[in-house]
Amino acid sequence: MSEQLTLYLHKLSPYSQKIEIALIEANAPYKGHHVDLSNKPEWFTSIVNPVGKVPAVAYGGPIVDPENPSPLSTKIAESSVILEFLADLYPDSGLLPKDLVLRAKVRFFNDATTKHLEGPFYDFVIGRGSYENVVKGIEFVQGLLEEGKDFAVGDHYTIADACISPCLARLKVVTETDIGKFPVGMGSKLGEELKGPKFTEFTKYVDRMLERQSLKQTYDKEALITYFKTVFMRAQ
Amino acid sequence: MSEQLTLYLHKLSPYSQKIEIALIEANAPYKGHHVDLSNKPEWFTSIVNPVGKVPAVAYGGPIVDPENPSPLSTKIAESSVILEFLADLYPDSGLLPKDLVLRAKVRFFNDATTKHLEGPFYDFVIGRGSYENVVKGIEFVQGLLEEGKDFAVGDHYTIADACISPCLARLKVVTETDIGKFPVGMGSKLGEELKGPKFTEFTKYVDRMLERQSLKQTYDKEALITYFKTVFMRAQ
Ligand SMILES: N[C@@H](CCC(=O)N[C@@H](CS)C(=O)NCC(=O)O)C(=O)O
Ligand SMILES: N[C@@H](CCC(=O)N[C@@H](CS)C(=O)NCC(=O)O)C(=O)O
Repeated sequence: MSEQLTLYLHKLSPYSQKIEIALIEANAPYKGHHVDLSNKPEWFTSIVNPVGKVPAVAYGGPIVDPENPSPLSTKIAESSVILEFLADLYPDSGLLPKDLVLRAKVRFFNDATTKHLEGPFYDFVIGRGSYENVVKGIEFVQGLLEEGKDFAVGDHYTIADACISPCLARLKVVTETDIGKFPVGMGSKLGEELKGPKFTEFTKYVDRMLERQSLKQTYDKEALITYFKTVFMRAQ
Repeated sequence: MSEQLTLYLHKLSPYSQKIEIALIEANAPYKGHHVDLSNKPEWFTSIVNPVGKVPAVAYGGPIVDPENPSPLSTKIAESSVILEFLADLYPDSGLLPKDLVLRAKVRFFNDATTKHLEGPFYDFVIGRGSYENVVKGIEFVQGLLEEGKDFAVGDHYTIADACISPCLARLKVVTETDIGKFPVGMGSKLGEELKGPKFTEFTKYVDRMLERQSLKQTYDKEALITYFKTVFMRAQ
């Protein structure tokens, strides 16, 4: 019998979503528990994650109320660490390929997603990063995709796809709605640029990922737009 | 028979050193090849690593002159990716424990080293980061060390130790020599602070790591000091 796994998450957090997607793709039983980040409960930082961030996992130990976490469970934080943990826990899920070189490619893809795409893109959205860096990041990621393949790496859904998908969903929203702290129109401009022939491989990949049941199930587009509108409201 | 492995490195690069240390700890055969970063050869960026950074590994394919890399070998960049690759390649080396939870701890330790210690420390050395952040990073890392244990995680040398050791060596040099672009005296001050009772666990760990044969063998302290002096020469 496998051990209990509780995922502490926030419904709008892209990092939490990576983990939820991976759990669903692996067909893994888990209990998701929403953490109010705007009013962080004391038990969360004192027992689950001293750094105070989601996602965090409590693995093993007795089955308890998530708001009363057991000291007997192992607590794991950082989405990249949790993704690897899930791949270790479900070695036959395909979350990581068996082949050594493909495993390295998955990890390189995740590193690239984090550094070249997520970093520049979230910076752009909050008005602290350049448009050019986002485009460069997309180019970098596209360069890693193999033509004619459905997934980021190899022939199976892996943690590389789970890692990038939440960012792709947000990229889609930003390019469709132009919501963000960048100069008006730059979000739409990015959307137009992505429709061009240069980015065909990338946009096809994005579309495939956004069609995925695991993504849809973990993602409330309307709630995200409402949230983005609140946070990035422009002074009129 | 195992495949050939060529490590492209720079003798002063802490990221290269992580990989060389891990290879030595795993007793793995490899060919190390120094890349002149100040005058980067064309074949390096065109064939080995388009990002142009060391470390990079060429794995498999025919045995060739490192300066004439084969298109048939797999090229792997990013030290964190290469460390995992080596642990996969040598599953019995102990570079990663077999236990799932310990594996997650190793990965969390590496993430912490990179974000909380290396980032702030190298920023501090080049005069762009605060003293306080370095101290906080050291506190964070120390908090992960288990009392009475010799290694970062568990009872064996892992990629967690390999990942942090090059930074510890540089920390030692900076605290001993006060060389760096921080205000004069701050390096020595850090050294004094680390001698205090608050940091006993950390300094004991540092000393153990610096005694390690794999570290000594991959590290030329005098060359590093000379290099630091050149780069961080103060205007008189
Ligand atoms: N590097 C972390 C990032 C996690 C993160 O930034 N989580 C955000 C939500 S998306 C959070 O919990 N923020 C709350 C806070 O910092 O107080 C990971 O990959 O897990
Ligand atoms: N994130 C990379 C960092 C590697 C890196 O910054 N390497 C430096 C040497 S320490 C380098 O090759 N610099 C040459 C350049 O950027 O042109 C890793 O972990 O491998």
